[in-house]
Amino acid sequence: MFKQTCTNLTTLSIQRVRQWLNGFETIICDADGVLWHFDKAIDGSVEAFNAIQDTGRNTFIVTNNSCLCSEKIRLKARDFGFNVRKDHVLNSGKSVASFLSSKNFQQKVFVVGGVGIIEELAAVNICAFQFRNEKIKKSMRDFALEMEVDEDVGAVVVGRDDSFNMCSVIRACHYLRNPQILFLGCCLDAAYPIGNNRVLAGAAAMIALVKTITSRKPLILGKPNPWIVREPIESGAINPATTLMIGDTLETDIKFANYNGFQSILVGSGVTELEKVERIRDRGQKKQMRLVPDAYLPRLCDIIEYL
Amino acid sequence: MFKQTCTNLTTLSIQRVRQWLNGFETIICDADGVLWHFDKAIDGSVEAFNAIQDTGRNTFIVTNNSCLCSEKIRLKARDFGFNVRKDHVLNSGKSVASFLSSKNFQQKVFVVGGVGIIEELAAVNICAFQFRNEKIKKSMRDFALEMEVDEDVGAVVVGRDDSFNMCSVIRACHYLRNPQILFLGCCLDAAYPIGNNRVLAGAAAMIALVKTITSRKPLILGKPNPWIVREPIESGAINPATTLMIGDTLETDIKFANYNGFQSILVGSGVTELEKVERIRDRGQKKQMRLVPDAYLPRLCDIIEYL
Repeated sequence: MFKQTCTNLTTLSIQRVRQWLNGFETIICDADGVLWHFDKAIDGSVEAFNAIQDTGRNTFIVTNNSCLCSEKIRLKARDFGFNVRKDHVLNSGKSVASFLSSKNFQQKVFVVGGVGIIEELAAVNICAFQFRNEKIKKSMRDFALEMEVDEDVGAVVVGRDDSFNMCSVIRACHYLRNPQILFLGCCLDAAYPIGNNRVLAGAAAMIALVKTITSRKPLILGKPNPWIVREPIESGAINPATTLMIGDTLETDIKFANYNGFQSILVGSGVTELEKVERIRDRGQKKQMRLVPDAYLPRLCDIIEYL
Repeated sequence: MFKQTCTNLTTLSIQRVRQWLNGFETIICDADGVLWHFDKAIDGSVEAFNAIQDTGRNTFIVTNNSCLCSEKIRLKARDFGFNVRKDHVLNSGKSVASFLSSKNFQQKVFVVGGVGIIEELAAVNICAFQFRNEKIKKSMRDFALEMEVDEDVGAVVVGRDDSFNMCSVIRACHYLRNPQILFLGCCLDAAYPIGNNRVLAGAAAMIALVKTITSRKPLILGKPNPWIVREPIESGAINPATTLMIGDTLETDIKFANYNGFQSILVGSGVTELEKVERIRDRGQKKQMRLVPDAYLPRLCDIIEYL
């Protein structure tokens, strides 16, 4: 109804918005910036999420966060009070695991990223390993020449990792010199503003580093890649025609909704400002329009009165 | 005479090559891959360099290596036996210092890179600092929120740094959120192959990481930027019309020669294979032609018989 118009729902009548929302059987929420910020739920998001769930709708959390495995993200959500069902949390680490599993991948995976990736891979019987905080007493050149490598590695996965260091990067790049070895990335989130003009690095930063050294391009399996919801779509648990995605990031959430044929709401509680979207919409360039959501709400909790 | 033909000099008569070389008053050599590999001089390079010097030619070493300051690179060269004169070694750290000095830069510089950059800046009375191997016991988010920042920083310089870690990157990215703060890079060398299918990361890798997080583009002051030889050209110590550049890398050395109006020889002892250059030359695309050297020699020592 509001296709790529970024309609501010708070400017419409309650009946009109309610009528639109009535058409959705499934509502997918992004996590960071929509449901919570780091260790704090966003005001009203728990009540809103649970109210959606109480209407009998199918609710999912789909996040590019790969630092934790999807089950731990579910437990974190439950600790906040979100009534999210088992197997209804999907993340980019799980997407990587599902991709490799679908290829009947039998080798080992070297990971530069969070332990969540390793746990997701273990859940599909794929052996993954990493080196965290590796310390060396020799020069990096001697380290690189002398390091032992695992001949059974068949893929390198790079995700967000605050503790990554050059040893780990050098190992990853060595494996990737062999073009047979897959190069997978969790997502292309570049930075997370945390207030006070400070930022944290996203997975795209680590991926850029490895890309530059190896001249290779990774396959990114987090949003906006539809692979992250392939299983529930194939099983019929998600019907794209009656699915609404609620997110805070254009390049991941809104593009992802577009790629899947979902409708979308951008919320203003995360990284994207409404003015930025309105500028893109008003420019109207065809390729950029896939970044424009159908609708806008300041925060997830604003949805309650329309349910 | 051989403009962008990548003529293999060993296929020509000695007289013809000698005649060409006679036209050069100044010969500039790149260091890594031409004169030495890490801690080892390349066979015959000391004799060749000194033989060039003995003909009365003006010899320079111009390198993108910023891990050491230019004076320490000169001492390293002398330890190998190269007769290189004081102030005849120029590197990317010195280029950064000369750039800031020319702007009458009065603030502090935050460095992600080798100590050589700090030493070059100190030599022109610019205060620079870095944090190496910073260890934290809190989350990266708490670190980023609580870290103290220096309000007097006016530039961030990123160079090759094997020991860099996320704390240092987060500091650099914080400063770069302010568009008034300059973003300078030492060079765009992406990787250094060290044999046995192993590589080390070049400065371009660290720069890519910071670029991705900040969405800012640095000014690169190493080769191919002519800034690195601005001073000797302006003082008349180097006359571009009678200068020959000998290097091993197309994107830095040969493009640099082209930008400066120097003639160029590619040597095969470093990162570039002759076949790659011949493919570029034979394709003949205008923009790519600036990567094609005038001449080719397998190694620097092959020059001796033509002097």
